[in-house]
Amino acid sequence: MEIDRAVAEGLDAQDPLAPFRTRFAIDDRLVYLDGNSLGRLPLATVARVGGLVSGEWGRRLIRGWDEGWLALPRAVGDRIGASVLGAAAGQVVVADSTTVCFYKLAAAALCLRPGRTEIVTDVDNFPTDRFVLEGLAAARGLTIVWVPSRRHGGVSEGDIEELIGPQTALVTLSHTTYRSGFIADMAAINTLAHDVGALTLWDLSHSAGSVPVELDAWGADLAVGCTYKYLCGGPGAPAYMYARAELQPALRQPIWGWLGRQDPFAMEQGYVPGPGIDALVSGTPPVLGLACVEEGVRVVQDAGIDAIRAKGTALTSFLVLLLDERLAALGVGLGSPRDPLRRGSQVALTHPRAQELCAALVERGVIPDFRAPDVIRVGLSPLTTRFVDVWDGAEALRDLLLYS
Amino acid sequence: MEIDRAVAEGLDAQDPLAPFRTRFAIDDRLVYLDGNSLGRLPLATVARVGGLVSGEWGRRLIRGWDEGWLALPRAVGDRIGASVLGAAAGQVVVADSTTVCFYKLAAAALCLRPGRTEIVTDVDNFPTDRFVLEGLAAARGLTIVWVPSRRHGGVSEGDIEELIGPQTALVTLSHTTYRSGFIADMAAINTLAHDVGALTLWDLSHSAGSVPVELDAWGADLAVGCTYKYLCGGPGAPAYMYARAELQPALRQPIWGWLGRQDPFAMEQGYVPGPGIDALVSGTPPVLGLACVEEGVRVVQDAGIDAIRAKGTALTSFLVLLLDERLAALGVGLGSPRDPLRRGSQVALTHPRAQELCAALVERGVIPDFRAPDVIRVGLSPLTTRFVDVWDGAEALRDLLLYS
Repeated sequence: MEIDRAVAEGLDAQDPLAPFRTRFAIDDRLVYLDGNSLGRLPLATVARVGGLVSGEWGRRLIRGWDEGWLALPRAVGDRIGASVLGAAAGQVVVADSTTVCFYKLAAAALCLRPGRTEIVTDVDNFPTDRFVLEGLAAARGLTIVWVPSRRHGGVSEGDIEELIGPQTALVTLSHTTYRSGFIADMAAINTLAHDVGALTLWDLSHSAGSVPVELDAWGADLAVGCTYKYLCGGPGAPAYMYARAELQPALRQPIWGWLGRQDPFAMEQGYVPGPGIDALVSGTPPVLGLACVEEGVRVVQDAGIDAIRAKGTALTSFLVLLLDERLAALGVGLGSPRDPLRRGSQVALTHPRAQELCAALVERGVIPDFRAPDVIRVGLSPLTTRFVDVWDGAEALRDLLLYS
Repeated sequence: MEIDRAVAEGLDAQDPLAPFRTRFAIDDRLVYLDGNSLGRLPLATVARVGGLVSGEWGRRLIRGWDEGWLALPRAVGDRIGASVLGAAAGQVVVADSTTVCFYKLAAAALCLRPGRTEIVTDVDNFPTDRFVLEGLAAARGLTIVWVPSRRHGGVSEGDIEELIGPQTALVTLSHTTYRSGFIADMAAINTLAHDVGALTLWDLSHSAGSVPVELDAWGADLAVGCTYKYLCGGPGAPAYMYARAELQPALRQPIWGWLGRQDPFAMEQGYVPGPGIDALVSGTPPVLGLACVEEGVRVVQDAGIDAIRAKGTALTSFLVLLLDERLAALGVGLGSPRDPLRRGSQVALTHPRAQELCAALVERGVIPDFRAPDVIRVGLSPLTTRFVDVWDGAEALRDLLLYS
């Protein structure tokens, strides 16, 4: 039997998460395969933003700070921690951009390991992480030890074991890589790093809300992640930081700001870091962004990360099947792990004309992401992507390859 | 003739900016005297946010980045520069919180003056600025030279002249202080600093949108400021950074991020700072906040900073008159400069029971700000405050002092 669209329709009919699609603003004519870059808009967010702007800001004005805004960074952090990070309360806070959050935690980690001279990361790590590390290394005279590019962009325990030692201050990787979707073995790498006395800092941007993460159980030290992908917080929504409870008393981040200080509104002389995770905050929290993140995370939490993961692997496996059966013969390759357990909710399709094909797909209302030089990155956000979307997207690509 | 409410009504009737009040969401029953802490909601912002969320994010999704979002940091920056900072295009960009922006510019300035060991600021500067400087000084082994607390919280040219020298790397002050509203002589202080080879970094949070600023003409090197006060960008809206064009090629800020890199979407190896002001950007821009800032600044721009300043001095002068005539005898003092040219759009009223009085005022629908230990800070945002608001607020305070 040849696979056809009816197979996809059948999979959709059995999908227990199908009803969640109705909680998002969705135009069915668009085949959106980029939810791992910018997640869709939850309908609840529209109402929340309206109420926040017209009601809270417009009517309550400055009183809004005491009536909930000031509590948002920790409240939303705890919600993210509980629902998708496996983090007990008091270890996650939302603030700043992912880049700034990553900078604060990486710098704080380096201060906890004075005298150690090396940072380990990989050349396929997300650019902003690499650049932040380069800046920190340049400023402090440290060396970055680069894991070389691997097939499927992943870093293995063996890669790390080879490069770490008593000179290693910090091992920092993406849990799920942005390009290939390879999932690192976080628990194993934490153990390796701790065995040599190094700290770990994980970028969870492409995991949180799609791939289960157990920061506490897996022994992570620090983590950071973006909220506008699977957590559907909207364009440029603020990121979160995780710091393991035991590390917090000694942890000192570099951007000392008034809202990270003990008793901020006393406006006193001299910075004294606030209690626990609060000390990771610097400036005034971005209230609109925080509210959007809260609504996005709520939907994810209602669906449950295990159900989301199950659908995510089903979606990517279906695409790999279509690749094997209908695209491989036309020159399309797989740039992601074949093992679904090592693959996030995305699939990298490789083709020498990837850039041109992406542009043509977008023109036809199919939206993947191009990643230089040869990757068509297909993000399959489980809460908003149907199996027929996978089918339609793959067929659109097949049509292009056959007839253009 | 005794002053009465009719005087205030008469002033409102002649106010050329009165029509601008209709461009904001305003409930006339509230006497809001805290627009210098959180500015009111422009009605255009409600529509803009709705369109951005439902239209751009909801429908255009990832395409929004190319359809305008990526241009926002510079576009909004240029608009702020042209309308209220006296800065030619290409020198202002919006990103991050005020604290993070201040950190980036202060750190960048220190890198431009290696070997110099001192930072000059004042003990009455806004806490977050002081804390950021303390963090940077601690990390780099520098000394902060503190201008001691002055009557009315202001720093004079004489204060600076006494403390600077060839060891000074950076002089950093608030142009208008947050507490007393004292306006520093920026041009004179820039000249003094430059004469000893130091750089200047100005915090414009309490100036921009209320007090004219001419960064280019006054020879400022760097500046930063918040957008949720007189610029009405909403709670936690992102801040702006100014870097004088001549300084930009050598300026290197510490948080190297993907959106501050040359050609960011090439995702290449190695950080190379982007051209000009772009290099001050680190992470993904907060799109919702940026859109709100743009709408707020548009209203300010339409009114014109000179008209705003004229009304601002009229409002604060009216309050000082009411203080002299109706409050001074009840124990209220003036904690702001008496000279309106040295005073921002705010007045600090001092009273030993300031905290309790503030709470009682808020209960009566009059909203000033308490600043420890003894200041009732009255912010008179010119676009949204009427003379009758000043009258009603002052009378409410008088009633409390007489009858409670």
